[in-house]
Amino acid sequence: MPKKIKKIGVLTSGGDSPGMNAAIRSVVRTCAYHNIECAGIYRGFEGLIEGDFKLMDARSVKGIINKGGTILKTARSKEFRTKEGRQKAFDKLNQAEIEGLVVVGGDGSFNGAMILNKEFGFPVMGIPGTIDNDIVGTTHTLGFDTALNTVVDAIDKIRDTASSHNRLFFIEVMGRDVGHIALNAGIAGGAEEILIPEEDLGLDRLVESLKRSRKSGKSSSIVIVAEGDKIGKNIFELKDYVDENMEGYDVRVSVLGHMQRGGSPSCFDRVLASRMGVKAVESLLEGKSNYMVGLQNGKMELTHLDNAIKGKTKINLELLRVSDIMST
Amino acid sequence: MPKKIKKIGVLTSGGDSPGMNAAIRSVVRTCAYHNIECAGIYRGFEGLIEGDFKLMDARSVKGIINKGGTILKTARSKEFRTKEGRQKAFDKLNQAEIEGLVVVGGDGSFNGAMILNKEFGFPVMGIPGTIDNDIVGTTHTLGFDTALNTVVDAIDKIRDTASSHNRLFFIEVMGRDVGHIALNAGIAGGAEEILIPEEDLGLDRLVESLKRSRKSGKSSSIVIVAEGDKIGKNIFELKDYVDENMEGYDVRVSVLGHMQRGGSPSCFDRVLASRMGVKAVESLLEGKSNYMVGLQNGKMELTHLDNAIKGKTKINLELLRVSDIMST
Amino acid sequence: MPKKIKKIGVLTSGGDSPGMNAAIRSVVRTCAYHNIECAGIYRGFEGLIEGDFKLMDARSVKGIINKGGTILKTARSKEFRTKEGRQKAFDKLNQAEIEGLVVVGGDGSFNGAMILNKEFGFPVMGIPGTIDNDIVGTTHTLGFDTALNTVVDAIDKIRDTASSHNRLFFIEVMGRDVGHIALNAGIAGGAEEILIPEEDLGLDRLVESLKRSRKSGKSSSIVIVAEGDKIGKNIFELKDYVDENMEGYDVRVSVLGHMQRGGSPSCFDRVLASRMGVKAVESLLEGKSNYMVGLQNGKMELTHLDNAIKGKTKINLELLRVSDIMST
Amino acid sequence: MPKKIKKIGVLTSGGDSPGMNAAIRSVVRTCAYHNIECAGIYRGFEGLIEGDFKLMDARSVKGIINKGGTILKTARSKEFRTKEGRQKAFDKLNQAEIEGLVVVGGDGSFNGAMILNKEFGFPVMGIPGTIDNDIVGTTHTLGFDTALNTVVDAIDKIRDTASSHNRLFFIEVMGRDVGHIALNAGIAGGAEEILIPEEDLGLDRLVESLKRSRKSGKSSSIVIVAEGDKIGKNIFELKDYVDENMEGYDVRVSVLGHMQRGGSPSCFDRVLASRMGVKAVESLLEGKSNYMVGLQNGKMELTHLDNAIKGKTKINLELLRVSDIMST
Repeated sequence: MPKKIKKIGVLTSGGDSPGMNAAIRSVVRTCAYHNIECAGIYRGFEGLIEGDFKLMDARSVKGIINKGGTILKTARSKEFRTKEGRQKAFDKLNQAEIEGLVVVGGDGSFNGAMILNKEFGFPVMGIPGTIDNDIVGTTHTLGFDTALNTVVDAIDKIRDTASSHNRLFFIEVMGRDVGHIALNAGIAGGAEEILIPEEDLGLDRLVESLKRSRKSGKSSSIVIVAEGDKIGKNIFELKDYVDENMEGYDVRVSVLGHMQRGGSPSCFDRVLASRMGVKAVESLLEGKSNYMVGLQNGKMELTHLDNAIKGKTKINLELLRVSDIMST
Repeated sequence: MPKKIKKIGVLTSGGDSPGMNAAIRSVVRTCAYHNIECAGIYRGFEGLIEGDFKLMDARSVKGIINKGGTILKTARSKEFRTKEGRQKAFDKLNQAEIEGLVVVGGDGSFNGAMILNKEFGFPVMGIPGTIDNDIVGTTHTLGFDTALNTVVDAIDKIRDTASSHNRLFFIEVMGRDVGHIALNAGIAGGAEEILIPEEDLGLDRLVESLKRSRKSGKSSSIVIVAEGDKIGKNIFELKDYVDENMEGYDVRVSVLGHMQRGGSPSCFDRVLASRMGVKAVESLLEGKSNYMVGLQNGKMELTHLDNAIKGKTKINLELLRVSDIMST
Repeated sequence: MPKKIKKIGVLTSGGDSPGMNAAIRSVVRTCAYHNIECAGIYRGFEGLIEGDFKLMDARSVKGIINKGGTILKTARSKEFRTKEGRQKAFDKLNQAEIEGLVVVGGDGSFNGAMILNKEFGFPVMGIPGTIDNDIVGTTHTLGFDTALNTVVDAIDKIRDTASSHNRLFFIEVMGRDVGHIALNAGIAGGAEEILIPEEDLGLDRLVESLKRSRKSGKSSSIVIVAEGDKIGKNIFELKDYVDENMEGYDVRVSVLGHMQRGGSPSCFDRVLASRMGVKAVESLLEGKSNYMVGLQNGKMELTHLDNAIKGKTKINLELLRVSDIMST
Repeated sequence: MPKKIKKIGVLTSGGDSPGMNAAIRSVVRTCAYHNIECAGIYRGFEGLIEGDFKLMDARSVKGIINKGGTILKTARSKEFRTKEGRQKAFDKLNQAEIEGLVVVGGDGSFNGAMILNKEFGFPVMGIPGTIDNDIVGTTHTLGFDTALNTVVDAIDKIRDTASSHNRLFFIEVMGRDVGHIALNAGIAGGAEEILIPEEDLGLDRLVESLKRSRKSGKSSSIVIVAEGDKIGKNIFELKDYVDENMEGYDVRVSVLGHMQRGGSPSCFDRVLASRMGVKAVESLLEGKSNYMVGLQNGKMELTHLDNAIKGKTKINLELLRVSDIMST
């Protein structure tokens, strides 16, 4: 039977995502529920090294479940990549009598957690917080659902003006080197084409497809481009290519940018965050370590951290086909 | 090998839900993709009896994916409950050379589809469209996710004023005789208590719990009450009981009402609707009948219509526990 | 030349409204800009009596401009209605060396400010914070614009379901004994009828008008009812009357309730709050007292507090006519 | 007494803006109210030349008051700039027996209307539809208020991530060569600096101001840049300059783009559109021509079209000062 943990630390790291605050709240309240202490660690691994900690009780996370961003802030830490940096972090954890760590973030953050565990045997647990949905072991990362709604809302607005002007719009969305945001938001936004890194349509087929769309009576078109897609060197070159190879089209580009990372989390992400926080804390209390909590078939499940970031998430082929059929 | 279907009809029935238009669009475009005709049937089974049909091509469903409600309208039909009414409906389908029917709706609508199939052997396929999530065979009904976001947005607004005034609010949400909306929206809205039909907390324990909340330092509280909950005869009597049995509380009631059924569907519901429409049409084309399409473990699956409405959806017990922990 | 004020207090009182936090932020930062101190006073006049004050610097109001409610909380104070209570309040102000007071609230709050000024000569300045727009001397009270958008968003959602079902909806909106919210939101929501306290349509004419609407081809209708309207004893009795006197209508009621008071303030309300805070503080610094700041013809203007609450705001007759024409 | 007009045409032209549909609806229903015919003219002056007209009755504009874009579509017409093109347009108007024209658009559109009036004496009336608020004779153009809310919502989202990362964001907003959107949305979004064409801050003072902000304890900053501002050659060069001249700042750029033109209109814009449509039609019926309807001191007023576009709107100096004080 594992030694009972009496104090847990929680930090957010890497790019922020909606739902991180809800996850912090859940970690803090689950600790309170189990009568153990919880320390918030500011600015990710940077604050870990500096010992920038603050005790948090159940009331201290009041009113944050619906706030975007992260009240613990996030940062990228160069020093943590050095052995000395990590030693400092471990010392600070010991001084503060923290006996387990919950890390909310993406693959880089999980790497940090793993090395801390490997070098010092420190108990760590990961919560996948990123809008990109690029983590293996969970069907949904925290923030993905909210980002989808934000992107779809922007597409709806752009379609208003696209269809008023009979224009063709290229809209770039986030997602790093995977196409999950593009594919889902593209279907929901009624996009004529969705360009994702996982599938190389080719410029000529894109132009052909757009010409066919127009012939079939579509007067305006939306093409969603995942930021990781390589069909053009970038979206502006893509626009130029289409401009040159199609007549009579008024082509515009919109890069949605960082607003995709913010905003009040959706109901889905708030519930997911609440569940993940409970599971992460209780798994540490059960003596488990080095796992990520994730959603699988509607249940909270654990995945080894190295499996979570080693693999590559697969695009849902059914969705690709649905997208094709919908743009009939 | 089944006879190739050449024309499919689609109708919406029962209470409307966000995503119904996206489902209609998907049915119409999947028909177009497979080069078969599609007839929109107005006002549910009422319009079926009257032969209120309209041919719909791919362009006719342009610009509806983001609209709440249903362009085909919906109604409850007394006449369809009679044998004569159903005979008329069957005759109209034959006259219009419709060979398969997609019904978007809840359990009452599925009952209608089943009896049409039973009496005349007419091929039918169901798409679960209701905000209540009370259908077996799908983890999410169409509109559930959107309704959750609508409810959570309203709770957020009410919390602004609740916490400014240190008030206790009882908020009634929809969901018929199940607590799915209440439980999910309650967790996401940070409710102190969630009253659902599946669990009888009892008035005394509710009052005790609220007193404990206040002692622990909470100055305002939100209690979510599912419309099907029977703890008080209704939410206003519940308020009166708490008013009488607790001192110093300013208690208010808000019944969210029909706005929960409307609004632009979320990304989740639009993608779900698109997938369900494809699956429903292609299942009919494969010769299947009397099934509902549903989401199970992330995949489109079929469930016999009688199983879909015979069983009772179960509340997720993990969520109940998460709710308890979060209100620490 | 007036004695230079060195410290100003700010409180919010009465019903909360979106934009109150933006006004608090503006008061605090304007004080900082002029190098004077600012004390936040909690829970309105109740906290004033108790001396529940907190010094606020420019950074302390960070991140609140977009939050509904009021971080200073609000309350109704019985004790302040007594001479003793007000004497205590005045003593607390003196002890804290506060030399001027900004009161954000409605007519009741302004009454409190005026009596404080009358009895003790204490410099006071009012900012009209209420969603009801029932204050003379400003075309817009703080929160009115936000509440309008909240109401219109709810009407849009209800219309989705109303038009899917061919229903008639009565929707009750806030506004106390004036019809500003009802009239503006009714026009914007495309209501067929708008019932406001300022105009007595009469039940028979309402029924006639609804019958005419239906004849002209409208299949669904929305009627907006101001909470202060007296055409029925209440909206449920109004529904019953229409139910009895019109055939073939499916009539429903929705009472929007307290969500109208919450939510992130609109751009308009945030800018208005920022302007009002500057004007209120600088007017106190100029030695003025007993005024309300208001928006008149696009400019910040002062109105004597007794004029602000003595008069009655007038309904814009042009809007009534526009409403009639739009429901053609 | 002027000859009674029996048929009015309405078109939208130039860039679209939220509220154009509400204005079309109002023009159509006001015509119906006065028992005259109304013809919708598609694709602006291009459709006018081609005779692309459609009779619209009161029911035909149902359900559009809350839709962004314009159902009549908009276009820029080269042919209308030629005398021959305009002659064709005039002939088409005569053939269709249209006796007055309502043009919804910006300065380019009003120019078109004026020349039609000048050359052929054709009665025209303008409704200012543009998000830029760059028309003289109205305090608010149609779509300005909605665009402000869209921009502020995006700023709120970006601030979530900016403050989580302690970043400096440059956000480019629309507005052509005026700074109305930037100034209002900047104040409402809590921007530290607002760069507008009307005021040249200078790069050095910008950098100094940002350094001062940081020293005063601000860990993240938002700078709003109007698209017409010339402080850097463009926003990316501005970023580079700041990157080079400030240490330890993580600087990012976001160009909000075309989503600013879309979306469901705010309550304000819907009411404004309804009022403007009534005033435009009734002014034509009174025999007036060559005017724009506008909002002045809360009332509908007429301005000669040449005055509306000849002058230059002035920035509200009070707002500039409020912005300065708020960024204390």
